[in-house]
Amino acid sequence: MFAPFEAVASRLVDVAMGRGFADLVVRRARWVNVHSGEIIPDTDIAVVAGRFAYCGPDASHTIGPDTEVVDAAGRYAVPGLCDAHMHVESGMITVTEFCRAVMPHGTTSMFIDPHEIANVLGLPGVRLMHDEAAVQPVNVWVQMPSCVPSAPGLEEAGARVTPDDVREAMNWPQIIGLGEVMNFPGVASNDPTMLGVIAETRRAGRTVGGHYASRDLGRAFHGYVAGGAEDDHEGTRAEDAVARVRQGMKAMLRLGSAWYDVAEQIRAVTEFGLDPRNFILCTDDCHSGTLVHEGHMDRVVRHAIARGVKPVTAIQMATLNTAEHFKLEREIGSITPGRRADLLLVSDLPTLVIDEVYARGVRVAAGGRLAIEVPAHGAYPAAALDTVRLGRPLVAGDFTLRAPDGRNQVEARVIGVVENQAPTRSLRRTLPVVDGEVSGDPAQDVCRIALVERHRGTGGVVNAFVSGFGYGASCAMASTVAHDSHHMIVVGTEPGDMALAANRLGEIGGGVVFFRNGVEQALVEMPLAGLMSIERAEVVAAKTEQLIAAMRDAGCTLNNAYMQHSLLALAVIPALRITDRGLVDVERFESVPVFVDG
Amino acid sequence: MFAPFEAVASRLVDVAMGRGFADLVVRRARWVNVHSGEIIPDTDIAVVAGRFAYCGPDASHTIGPDTEVVDAAGRYAVPGLCDAHMHVESGMITVTEFCRAVMPHGTTSMFIDPHEIANVLGLPGVRLMHDEAAVQPVNVWVQMPSCVPSAPGLEEAGARVTPDDVREAMNWPQIIGLGEVMNFPGVASNDPTMLGVIAETRRAGRTVGGHYASRDLGRAFHGYVAGGAEDDHEGTRAEDAVARVRQGMKAMLRLGSAWYDVAEQIRAVTEFGLDPRNFILCTDDCHSGTLVHEGHMDRVVRHAIARGVKPVTAIQMATLNTAEHFKLEREIGSITPGRRADLLLVSDLPTLVIDEVYARGVRVAAGGRLAIEVPAHGAYPAAALDTVRLGRPLVAGDFTLRAPDGRNQVEARVIGVVENQAPTRSLRRTLPVVDGEVSGDPAQDVCRIALVERHRGTGGVVNAFVSGFGYGASCAMASTVAHDSHHMIVVGTEPGDMALAANRLGEIGGGVVFFRNGVEQALVEMPLAGLMSIERAEVVAAKTEQLIAAMRDAGCTLNNAYMQHSLLALAVIPALRITDRGLVDVERFESVPVFVDG
Repeated sequence: MFAPFEAVASRLVDVAMGRGFADLVVRRARWVNVHSGEIIPDTDIAVVAGRFAYCGPDASHTIGPDTEVVDAAGRYAVPGLCDAHMHVESGMITVTEFCRAVMPHGTTSMFIDPHEIANVLGLPGVRLMHDEAAVQPVNVWVQMPSCVPSAPGLEEAGARVTPDDVREAMNWPQIIGLGEVMNFPGVASNDPTMLGVIAETRRAGRTVGGHYASRDLGRAFHGYVAGGAEDDHEGTRAEDAVARVRQGMKAMLRLGSAWYDVAEQIRAVTEFGLDPRNFILCTDDCHSGTLVHEGHMDRVVRHAIARGVKPVTAIQMATLNTAEHFKLEREIGSITPGRRADLLLVSDLPTLVIDEVYARGVRVAAGGRLAIEVPAHGAYPAAALDTVRLGRPLVAGDFTLRAPDGRNQVEARVIGVVENQAPTRSLRRTLPVVDGEVSGDPAQDVCRIALVERHRGTGGVVNAFVSGFGYGASCAMASTVAHDSHHMIVVGTEPGDMALAANRLGEIGGGVVFFRNGVEQALVEMPLAGLMSIERAEVVAAKTEQLIAAMRDAGCTLNNAYMQHSLLALAVIPALRITDRGLVDVERFESVPVFVDG
Repeated sequence: MFAPFEAVASRLVDVAMGRGFADLVVRRARWVNVHSGEIIPDTDIAVVAGRFAYCGPDASHTIGPDTEVVDAAGRYAVPGLCDAHMHVESGMITVTEFCRAVMPHGTTSMFIDPHEIANVLGLPGVRLMHDEAAVQPVNVWVQMPSCVPSAPGLEEAGARVTPDDVREAMNWPQIIGLGEVMNFPGVASNDPTMLGVIAETRRAGRTVGGHYASRDLGRAFHGYVAGGAEDDHEGTRAEDAVARVRQGMKAMLRLGSAWYDVAEQIRAVTEFGLDPRNFILCTDDCHSGTLVHEGHMDRVVRHAIARGVKPVTAIQMATLNTAEHFKLEREIGSITPGRRADLLLVSDLPTLVIDEVYARGVRVAAGGRLAIEVPAHGAYPAAALDTVRLGRPLVAGDFTLRAPDGRNQVEARVIGVVENQAPTRSLRRTLPVVDGEVSGDPAQDVCRIALVERHRGTGGVVNAFVSGFGYGASCAMASTVAHDSHHMIVVGTEPGDMALAANRLGEIGGGVVFFRNGVEQALVEMPLAGLMSIERAEVVAAKTEQLIAAMRDAGCTLNNAYMQHSLLALAVIPALRITDRGLVDVERFESVPVFVDG
């Protein structure tokens, strides 16, 4: 455990006074001071015990024979960047591997919401992530997931989170608040579980994360605000950001792999002139590919600057503002005495060219590459690696749907995927019946979808139809990443391939697999809760690219095709979804049959 | 106890949604939004359970048959003002009376540091103030005093504060942090008590108040900063404010009865362009006269605006900035849902004309007058009213000083009062000897000073000489307000009058009294710990005016003559002071004899 301030305060004082020597001194830096909003040239920065001890014009008196001295030579000293809200699981990699991937990008603090693993493993899953978070070379705080299952009554996840769970978790050292309260209708209607988890968080003096995924800024919004959410990253329009800040919430602007919500909302600052102190940058979800090829928080800060935010202000939005929001202002978020010595040496400020990254005084990356060894997290408990329980081998017949007797065609509800959007359409299509069974119809771009129960080994399979993937070949893709309940979603044109794909994931403990004509084309193994690989980010990124290629070869031309697949069970976003209870109409929050004329 | 947010959240949601009715609705206000920095016209504000439930364009749906509706008619709705650091004892009145006095001035939150009573009564004294604070109609949080005694080794106060005391106090509901750590040399030299009280505060997650009363911004300053102080109100120059903010501290700018530190330091914002978010306004010390005749936080905000700060920014410095500093951002500091409904209706913003004051949704003042009944706090425990223990009746002979044998004059160290400054000079004067006893010398403006032990009834009296009061008449003034150890200081020209004055305070339990030619001229009774009156602020102000008049009539022309008197034992500010151990050279931190040639 990293020593708290009070355990090392006397050493900091000794160094500042010249009675003791620093471990590290950075000289002649341009100090990006997020408190004053200034950039102060010719600054020396002394570090001891992983914390800043002195920041000022001359640290000569702190330099001893064993002090490492780094000449910044006029480069900018920028506080380590913070990601205010994100899901490690979206990277398909472990906490440790995520840290490895983002350190070269200057991220030294993360606020992770392990909502996905909580849906699979419940509180023990959160604890698993928490304990891995606690031993990282960078700062990883954990938000306790608030809404498990996401759509109570419409799905059964692998676990449930109660107010009692939240109360317990608030005592864990890395827990920093409550994860996004996404059941916003529940808050506005005084759902006791929602108000209960918020109450436990407030009692513990922690920060309540929000998630208001609606364009309605009227009464429903005001009702949600009154319930106590303190931030929100679901806004997309400038007026969304304005409304949240006016109500005393922090507007979290996200730039993730598939989220592009900074450009519009930052206009609240750059055009409307709102005080920027209540704006915070985050990623929410980043795939391993984005981390490997594009960046992480550096990408977000760079983007905000490119949209017209003054560099120091954009950096505040990823450092001090975040730290204050989580009441960690004395620990992180600035280069000032007492704080953890998380610091970037930057050679160009507007484009944020990061030469070196220091975390707690240790040089962890340089020139875009990791500079330290970060061993894998060691063995995970068997329970976390054995979460795909099918109960029995599945066969082709599990993925067929019998038509009502005597029909040669049926009118079916079909989930309609919409390019580049999370919401689906609720379509109706007339489908052919062959030998008493309803089949998909390539001419209408309708194929099969199945939700396979995988938490309790019930052997349950729910079948329906989906449109938009464009599969022409005989193929199937299965994934145990199936937001938010994370059963298994299988989409395919051929029941035999669907059974092969499902069984393959059962065999390896989860992940994503693509079969074509009975042959495995691509596989990303994710044995940790069926959500995360235990391989390196580069390996996962490469395997994912192979998967995307296999989907494309089979006829799928969607952007983010893998994500579209994994969101088909997300019963909190309209319009039609599939869960272990069947098809769900997410506009009326009720189950509906596949066949309209059933 | 005022209900916490989580106990009433469902009611707030109900009101915001229109399912329940508000207690109070303010309509058509200009919303001074300290989060966004905007002023938003035509805003409705709904309050229930003492908290804001809805702030937006139309609160019609929250108005029921029993809702009180106030038409703001375009007036500004300003968050209730916060005093970030202050001593109730300086008002010479009780916590309750202080609240009565400041409510009409728009102060709805105070952060009080009961340092003075802690020097008299220790932890039980702090608890007394704490418990009275807890039941006020406005918000009074308490900072746990950190430095009792102020000058360990050079004085013995009525009590001591240890790290264990701090640990215990951090569990009390109104304790919000540690009071000003004024032993700044102790911090920089790693004094274990200083680092201990800071460590206990940090462990409790609370805010550490600072007090760096030096112009040296070099190594001594950096050493103090490294020790963990989070704010400072002792700066006087613009560069002091800049230095503190750059180091990650809050610059608290004070305007008290005798402190005028805003005008110079605010230039850091108005001229140098520093981010104003880390600037906070406070009063530190206000006499009852200031409260009655001039104002409180309204006076400070008005002054900041007059010095060129944008009104919304100046208001942030007395609302949101303060709330965030103490991690109370969800409780106070803005007019937004969930926060305590502390609100001012203001008819002119730059001059801050406060028409009405609401605290927790109750109209507590209007037109500069209190609008509610605030009963006195009831009986105080006997121990708190019986703190002046002289041990025996004092006589004139207790206030004389024998010369070394055979001398007809002596060279003596004399405390030199400096007009309008807290530091004294260490003078040397040749004084006459009459009948073997050293006397004062009106021709040199040297009179007698005595420190009378009053905590333990030892009967101890320390005698010396002071210059600067200008007393020509035969007179004496005694006060049990004698920072920081709060023994009794008696200054006079005639030992008989000195004995009369001292005995009078012993008889009534403390206060200030002035005798001339054996006759009492003025008296301010302060039976509560010998520091506070239990009368109304107006009464105390009038009695204090009478006291000042008596001093003036006897020849004293000093500004703030009463304060100069009460600071003569303050052994943490240079240069020469008197304590129960004798004369103290505060530059070398050691005791020195009265006679140079002993």
